[in-house]
Amino acid sequence: MTSSWQDRARQKREAILAAIPAEWVIKDLPSIEEQRDVTGEYIRGFLSEREVEITETDAEKIVDKTTTGAWKAEELHCLHEVFFDAAIESARSLDSYFAEQGKPVGPLHGLPVSLKDQFHVKGVETSMGYVGWIGTFEGKVGTGKEKIFESEMVRELRNLGAVLYCKTSVPHTLMAGETMNNIIGYTQNPKNRNLAAGGSSGGEGALIGIKGSPIGFGTDIGGSIRIPAAFNGLYGIRPTTGRLPYEGMANSMDGQNSILSVVGPLASTVGSLRLMTKAILSQEPWLHDPMVHEIPWRDSHEQEILKSVNSTGSSEGGKLCFGVMATDGIVNPSPPIRRAIDIVVKALCSHGHEVVEWTPPSHRAILDEAFKTWDFDAGSDLKSSFALSGEPMHPQVASFSALEKHYSASEISAVNVRLRNLKKEYLDYWNSTAKLSKSGRCVDAVIGPAAPWPAARPQKYSYYGYSTWVNALDYTSVVVPVTEVDKEIDVVDVGYKPLDERDKKSYESYDPSIYDGAHVGVQLVGRRFQEEKMLAIAEYVGKLVGK
Amino acid sequence: MTSSWQDRARQKREAILAAIPAEWVIKDLPSIEEQRDVTGEYIRGFLSEREVEITETDAEKIVDKTTTGAWKAEELHCLHEVFFDAAIESARSLDSYFAEQGKPVGPLHGLPVSLKDQFHVKGVETSMGYVGWIGTFEGKVGTGKEKIFESEMVRELRNLGAVLYCKTSVPHTLMAGETMNNIIGYTQNPKNRNLAAGGSSGGEGALIGIKGSPIGFGTDIGGSIRIPAAFNGLYGIRPTTGRLPYEGMANSMDGQNSILSVVGPLASTVGSLRLMTKAILSQEPWLHDPMVHEIPWRDSHEQEILKSVNSTGSSEGGKLCFGVMATDGIVNPSPPIRRAIDIVVKALCSHGHEVVEWTPPSHRAILDEAFKTWDFDAGSDLKSSFALSGEPMHPQVASFSALEKHYSASEISAVNVRLRNLKKEYLDYWNSTAKLSKSGRCVDAVIGPAAPWPAARPQKYSYYGYSTWVNALDYTSVVVPVTEVDKEIDVVDVGYKPLDERDKKSYESYDPSIYDGAHVGVQLVGRRFQEEKMLAIAEYVGKLVGK
Repeated sequence: MTSSWQDRARQKREAILAAIPAEWVIKDLPSIEEQRDVTGEYIRGFLSEREVEITETDAEKIVDKTTTGAWKAEELHCLHEVFFDAAIESARSLDSYFAEQGKPVGPLHGLPVSLKDQFHVKGVETSMGYVGWIGTFEGKVGTGKEKIFESEMVRELRNLGAVLYCKTSVPHTLMAGETMNNIIGYTQNPKNRNLAAGGSSGGEGALIGIKGSPIGFGTDIGGSIRIPAAFNGLYGIRPTTGRLPYEGMANSMDGQNSILSVVGPLASTVGSLRLMTKAILSQEPWLHDPMVHEIPWRDSHEQEILKSVNSTGSSEGGKLCFGVMATDGIVNPSPPIRRAIDIVVKALCSHGHEVVEWTPPSHRAILDEAFKTWDFDAGSDLKSSFALSGEPMHPQVASFSALEKHYSASEISAVNVRLRNLKKEYLDYWNSTAKLSKSGRCVDAVIGPAAPWPAARPQKYSYYGYSTWVNALDYTSVVVPVTEVDKEIDVVDVGYKPLDERDKKSYESYDPSIYDGAHVGVQLVGRRFQEEKMLAIAEYVGKLVGK
Repeated sequence: MTSSWQDRARQKREAILAAIPAEWVIKDLPSIEEQRDVTGEYIRGFLSEREVEITETDAEKIVDKTTTGAWKAEELHCLHEVFFDAAIESARSLDSYFAEQGKPVGPLHGLPVSLKDQFHVKGVETSMGYVGWIGTFEGKVGTGKEKIFESEMVRELRNLGAVLYCKTSVPHTLMAGETMNNIIGYTQNPKNRNLAAGGSSGGEGALIGIKGSPIGFGTDIGGSIRIPAAFNGLYGIRPTTGRLPYEGMANSMDGQNSILSVVGPLASTVGSLRLMTKAILSQEPWLHDPMVHEIPWRDSHEQEILKSVNSTGSSEGGKLCFGVMATDGIVNPSPPIRRAIDIVVKALCSHGHEVVEWTPPSHRAILDEAFKTWDFDAGSDLKSSFALSGEPMHPQVASFSALEKHYSASEISAVNVRLRNLKKEYLDYWNSTAKLSKSGRCVDAVIGPAAPWPAARPQKYSYYGYSTWVNALDYTSVVVPVTEVDKEIDVVDVGYKPLDERDKKSYESYDPSIYDGAHVGVQLVGRRFQEEKMLAIAEYVGKLVGK
């Protein structure tokens, strides 16, 4: 490869843009000052009435109609790959099947599903944001797998009748809460273009946020599903490791076994997430991915929650119990996040649920170990991917380039033992909450921030503690959209005394005028393998807060 | 600590012997030549009629009667700790409960359960065979946990009504298929004292084999449950990682996360194993051990097998399908193992089940990666435990002392990725067996050796491949006793051409006259998390072969 990384990135960028029909490209996008929010009315202005109807229908309702066809993808720098022709072909084939057989191919018949650019799809490249991966299979040449190999999840989605049509942007390395790379640049937040779409599943967040996709898949090793979900006003689930199939996906630092990345869907409704999770589990992924455990969808878990939330307040012990973690004591959340938590707490209390204060074992100790796992190989996997092309790291991930310490087997074992002990300590704490509640019920879900701010400002994502503790403990977590920033209400805390330099940085990055209108979400965290239960709780909470 | 390791080991050994009532110790044990087999008639000669009745009753039937009381432990060098007084006290307390409440404490009410010396039990030391651990908590002094801390499983066993009374011998390091250490010496096989009791749960194997315990727990990272089960004519289950709680147990190389040690029971009947597995799962261990997944006992899995084996041969597809792996092509099994496999295959075929040849992906590739995980830390964890006292390593584990290479994070990741890929390849092969069978049914279980020989001769355990592939792939496996060595039938293969030096060593270690009378077992391997199914199959196979 003789061309410069700049040339190769530019060629790829142009190819991506060229794949979007010219008439769909918004030529004269107004400035951020003129048009901060490009969702809602703005984007509808480019669509026909029928198109609006379709794009504003959620996955569950789309599937009800088994609608098929091509969908518009808006130019937000959120796309890595578009393959509308293949999508239309697959949609037509689904239509023929339906016409011939009189029944759908599967529960996702005709549903367009977007995929983070870690999924391998036949006929489509996987760059994962690395210039050096262009034209290769995960950076390797001559494997024979390029544009042929498919990830296990892709096979299952096809089986289920889904229509795959695009792959969405990621930050190079995947290790950032913002989305930027040298191919497509920076992925903005469509609701407030001053802000990041989040990361690393930022393309998914932006695309689903602007209703360019009804549902899509992200991955999460430190918050990468939940951050973009929260930043874009979406629901997103981080399942426990081993619930959904990661087999055959591209990844960073593959083989780091202490805290695993997991895959999960983002969408505008919980019904869509449930539809998708149930559909994938119906494929018995444990028979095709050796890391998935045989835990089918459990209706009874969902029913238990529905029974609780539908019970009258008077029926003793019937209601749910929530823990509320307003801060982790390391970095204090910004005013809109605090307000969102308050909204949820008040709504739950007014419906007869118990809310107790969540005072867990030290998150600092948990995070100290968790963040080490990202550094085990001294960034060598990431560095080698950059070295393929010579492209530079963006500042958001530049700290990896400074790493020098390679962890030894003994050091890794020590981290694993400490993580296990911290998990046990946290588990015991969770069990002990039965003593805190009047009903004697353990906390069902913990309400807390997914990040210290509604979204990060570019290059200001300074703290991952609110999402990463969940990965460290391998808990099930669902992000729930709650409100929007209101600069009149969510004013700066005057006279706030930062806890330390990091907290100061976070505090100073919040500016009501810049954040005005941004989505604000919270995170609901449950125990391990509580996907059915946490989706039911998230749906209920979403309804209570009017989302 | 100023005394020599020899003095400390001797003091501990004397203390163990002193804890056994003098009148129970067999003073004049005949030589091996005079009395090779000390099970059965020989041991019965020391017991009253009533004692024979009790010791020859399996766990399931004991529980039916909720019998309580003290049990004799025979001197086979198989005990590390005896705490009969505490056991009698706990038995009495169970009796009082029953008398007062008119119901048992739990499903294991009054059942004596022996424990490998990795379990921490209040009031009892855990030496794990290391002289340097005597008087410490896992080699550390002043932790305040010595003789106070209990493993999670111990808590659950007590909840269930079990009576804990002894801890059994292990090889120092736990990394051997024989059981020897500088405290209690060598654990012999009671059925044939020329041979090893197996390891690393060798004390369990010997004790249960001689009917000194109805059921006990071992652990298995490379065969350590299955090897002693096979060597002692027992059933033993190696569950998939995350099924049963390992929380709070002592271990070697703790924190090595690529292939995890698992805990599981050994007993003389499958009914006993089922009773124990169901009982532990009824405690919802996932609420107390962060590494256990929420998979309760699934009756339906068991029923499916019962339905199959009880169906008439004529009902299409009703029968089971087995894969047979007579050799892994690396080391060929000895004649009695081949005969045991033949016995099982013939019994299954004559009952209408299908048996297909198991021709899996390369076991050599799997084992190459698996054995690396034992060496990741260059033996430093083991070496540091030996260094505490200065005691020497026994020859069976001396290779660890020669290790120098410390694996780096990148090298460990590469092993993890290769292991995952090999698991996927094996999974795909397993799925493909649907094409091999006439019924279109995938193989339900693979029949194969647990070791190349019925038992190892002392210092001749030269090949772990037959057990360790199961750990590498994390499959569920149950050992089934099949027959005994008959020197007249199981003659040496005259003119056998060894595959290589290792195979030659293995071949030469088999001697019909030395092995005569030894137990011969086989291994039944199922997919991940198939504990219910594999126990049902093992019980059925055991019945067919008359065990």
